[in-house]
Amino acid sequence: MTSARFRATIPGEPVTLTGLGVVGGVGYAPVQWVRPRPELPTAGPEVPEDARQGEKERFAAAAATVGSRLASRASMVTGHASEVLAATSALATDRGWQRTVNKHIDGGASAEWAAVQATGTFVAKFEKIGGLMAERTTDLKDVRDRVIAELRGEPEPGVPDPQEPVVLLADDLAPADTAGLRPEVIAALVTALGGKTSHTAIIARQLGIPCVVAVGELLFQVEDGTQLLVDGETGELTQNPEGELAHRMVAEAAEKADRIRAWQGPAQTSDGYRVQLLANVQDGAAARKAAAPGIAEGVGLFRTELAFLSAQVEPTLEEQTAVYLEVFEAFRGHKVVVRTLDAGSDKPLVFANMPNEENPSLGVRGMRIALDRPELMTHQLDAIKAAAEASDVEAWVMAPMMSTVSEAEWFAGLCRERGLFPGVMVEVPGVALRADKVLEHVEFFSIGTNDLSQYTMAADRMSPYLSTLTDPWQPAVLRLVQLTAEAGQRAGKPVGVCGEAAADPLLACVLTGLGVTSLSAAAPALAAVGAQLSAVTLDQCRRAAAAAVDAKGSIEAREEATAILGG
Amino acid sequence: MTSARFRATIPGEPVTLTGLGVVGGVGYAPVQWVRPRPELPTAGPEVPEDARQGEKERFAAAAATVGSRLASRASMVTGHASEVLAATSALATDRGWQRTVNKHIDGGASAEWAAVQATGTFVAKFEKIGGLMAERTTDLKDVRDRVIAELRGEPEPGVPDPQEPVVLLADDLAPADTAGLRPEVIAALVTALGGKTSHTAIIARQLGIPCVVAVGELLFQVEDGTQLLVDGETGELTQNPEGELAHRMVAEAAEKADRIRAWQGPAQTSDGYRVQLLANVQDGAAARKAAAPGIAEGVGLFRTELAFLSAQVEPTLEEQTAVYLEVFEAFRGHKVVVRTLDAGSDKPLVFANMPNEENPSLGVRGMRIALDRPELMTHQLDAIKAAAEASDVEAWVMAPMMSTVSEAEWFAGLCRERGLFPGVMVEVPGVALRADKVLEHVEFFSIGTNDLSQYTMAADRMSPYLSTLTDPWQPAVLRLVQLTAEAGQRAGKPVGVCGEAAADPLLACVLTGLGVTSLSAAAPALAAVGAQLSAVTLDQCRRAAAAAVDAKGSIEAREEATAILGG
Repeated sequence: MTSARFRATIPGEPVTLTGLGVVGGVGYAPVQWVRPRPELPTAGPEVPEDARQGEKERFAAAAATVGSRLASRASMVTGHASEVLAATSALATDRGWQRTVNKHIDGGASAEWAAVQATGTFVAKFEKIGGLMAERTTDLKDVRDRVIAELRGEPEPGVPDPQEPVVLLADDLAPADTAGLRPEVIAALVTALGGKTSHTAIIARQLGIPCVVAVGELLFQVEDGTQLLVDGETGELTQNPEGELAHRMVAEAAEKADRIRAWQGPAQTSDGYRVQLLANVQDGAAARKAAAPGIAEGVGLFRTELAFLSAQVEPTLEEQTAVYLEVFEAFRGHKVVVRTLDAGSDKPLVFANMPNEENPSLGVRGMRIALDRPELMTHQLDAIKAAAEASDVEAWVMAPMMSTVSEAEWFAGLCRERGLFPGVMVEVPGVALRADKVLEHVEFFSIGTNDLSQYTMAADRMSPYLSTLTDPWQPAVLRLVQLTAEAGQRAGKPVGVCGEAAADPLLACVLTGLGVTSLSAAAPALAAVGAQLSAVTLDQCRRAAAAAVDAKGSIEAREEATAILGG
Repeated sequence: MTSARFRATIPGEPVTLTGLGVVGGVGYAPVQWVRPRPELPTAGPEVPEDARQGEKERFAAAAATVGSRLASRASMVTGHASEVLAATSALATDRGWQRTVNKHIDGGASAEWAAVQATGTFVAKFEKIGGLMAERTTDLKDVRDRVIAELRGEPEPGVPDPQEPVVLLADDLAPADTAGLRPEVIAALVTALGGKTSHTAIIARQLGIPCVVAVGELLFQVEDGTQLLVDGETGELTQNPEGELAHRMVAEAAEKADRIRAWQGPAQTSDGYRVQLLANVQDGAAARKAAAPGIAEGVGLFRTELAFLSAQVEPTLEEQTAVYLEVFEAFRGHKVVVRTLDAGSDKPLVFANMPNEENPSLGVRGMRIALDRPELMTHQLDAIKAAAEASDVEAWVMAPMMSTVSEAEWFAGLCRERGLFPGVMVEVPGVALRADKVLEHVEFFSIGTNDLSQYTMAADRMSPYLSTLTDPWQPAVLRLVQLTAEAGQRAGKPVGVCGEAAADPLLACVLTGLGVTSLSAAAPALAAVGAQLSAVTLDQCRRAAAAAVDAKGSIEAREEATAILGG
């Protein structure tokens, strides 16, 4: 029985550790650990009256230390970063917050528990006010965590900002932790938990940092300062390697990177079978950056959430049109596949009253929200139509979390009324199983392999414990991709893949062999995919696909495909 | 676009409402509403110092009212119920609790917010002490809710205990609400939310109460005291019906019930095709009750969680053996299919350190726990072996949440080492998609349609909003049942169904037509399934199955199958 958790269990002294390589490239530098956020108390013992003054002083001292540490850091940098740090420093010594903490201490709370409660009160107030104040809640929580760590005598939590290149190690990284990561000083990123589609992997891919996740508990034995060689392809970590070897590996990885950089589109196999390469983008800036190298032939997944998740009220037709137009203009004359709003109780809309859910990933998400609030969908389609007319892109539209034939029929009707080209995201296994019937109503499929894997294997793709199951190399997932692609071929309609799977060069060949006609991924990943496709024949892709679908498990699928593709 | 939420939207005066009929039978009685639990504050505005004495008095008065109301109810009943009510009444006026509330009010909290915080502190204390004290936390939360409702001038929350038969209406019922339901005074149960496998439906099925769920918001317009006719088969609700009609419908339903009661096993179609009917049980008492009518030919699903979820430490081999033996003895000489421990972060084990999960249904559940703690599995298999040897049952063993071929191989090995007959629960779509490969390693399949539907349609089966999607009549789900059953036929190995689908007489015919060889359900549901099977031919079952798999959606699948089966 192998599971990601146990993969690293090697008897004896651990010199080489293995995790899941999720972003290729080789990094070599001393280790620096990210300190975890402190566990927050949810209650506290009552502090006797005669000890309360002491608690107040303890709190004041900790807050002052945190404040001055942040202020001194602010003085060492310039510009926006300096302003942010100075403002956060001011929060640490805010009089109102301190007063509220003291009141809780008067009521018998410990300094820690009082800090948690007072922060809760302020967060609620800030959120009620909304706007800029609501944005301060993240900073306030950050200050609270730093003060609590200080109260406990623990090291300061969060991501360090090194001056020299380091290999950054963490148990797992939250979105807030990765905001200020500077790729120039991070030689590699390694986490004990996480999976192929965890936040850490996604951010590392965006920043182009070699990354290994799911190394397991043995990672915690690697100490700050250890020289670590990280291979983001194989997932191998070598502690204190022979220096020459390490430098050679870094050089070889750089050479491979050069070959990839030299590759020119459009993508095709060595025997000339064309595959469309498209980019995943979320806004105008990303679209312009994706269009610049001239590799992406269009956008395969335009995530439109940004316009909604940050909005206090539903954006107007004009506001939405402007957002879409910015992306469309970066790809004038090309195809842009727009995914309509994808939200849920884990990504709630401020302006919609969304219930809390026990299992948000299995809840009222994506287009399901529109069943209750159809105007959210029709307004968005109106805006897409307006933006498409104002640019000359080929606008394709698809809805996320489509589950039934009737839903597809309903959505296609709304699109056709507006002259838009309707498609369906294949994320729900039930849709792949009924691909022929669904294709009677729409013009294309785009397979979201991340969610499709999660539901097919019934394993949360964010779970650090189940990354082996949510691997898109799982033969059951590849079988659903095959069923979907075959239905597309029968109907003569295109079938793309827009999940993380499309960014894996070997898997991209397998998907091509399964009958997928386009691959959409983060723009920086496309050249490696194109270079790999150019090195194999269509027949190799098909044989690799057949072997992978028929393999015993995900590891065997990758091994057998690799052998056939010679990768 | 039809969704359960909108199905009841009929223009004009609502006389007839429609929901999802989940437990057959007809009820006719005046309506009584279950009052919902109050929303709890998570923070509160600061109460000025001069108003705090008033808050304390307000709290004391509300607590006294709640206490005396519970005390007077205690005096009206006898035995255990009276003791429980008296003890709960005492909690309402507990001095320690009141003192803690007053302290929070001194710190500036409102009476409500103080009650929430003080209860939180006590709950934490009780849980730390454990044992009997931990059990009191539910009562304390109940008292808190009653006091908060009283403070707000809202009606007392919870389920009423009527003296005369009523139709009970609720938005949805939680497990705690249904603990004391007396079937003799509940003519029918109707909820605005819920689905086929929601807690309300399951409890109504156990108690044999006609039940309609997912009626939608229009239900809230039906007032206390309205005469309501409830058809648990069609899901139709008629307000103030013509009295004679209502009484005739109740009589006809009783007649149908008589026919079912008169049915004798073993189950077969009218042309003599045998189907095995088995019972779902969770302990010795349920097994004896299931065995008594002589209909169940064995146990198709023995849920063993009871031995674990209530335990403070892992039960010993002897303790486990005793629990299993009690069930085995009720079915001496028959087949008993044991499902190994099914727990998860939503049903945590007290003695295992289980992480909180964002999506417990997609988390470390069922046999996945054993990947980290294999001894939990091997100890259980040892106990099952010992119990099987001490009785003469044919013990089959299967593990829940199996996801890959390797997992099945590992589990089968453990079973065979102990001479046990290994099988796999088909709940994860990936297993149904690879049924042939999995069957190379095990001897039988049992399809858990509840979870299989939830993952195939990517919709939480407990979500009140998504019951249309989690309907086991969804053709995509039936397609996976078909793939599984066909693999079973190729390998010559049995394939059963043990989800709620097996309890639906028409669906049971469809499952039979798909190639399923045994049906396991709550024992009281079996006779209706047997009676329905005896009224159709195998060819009808097969044609109904083909039509349902090929239907546009779940509603069409049921309609087309019904037309062929003449049900």
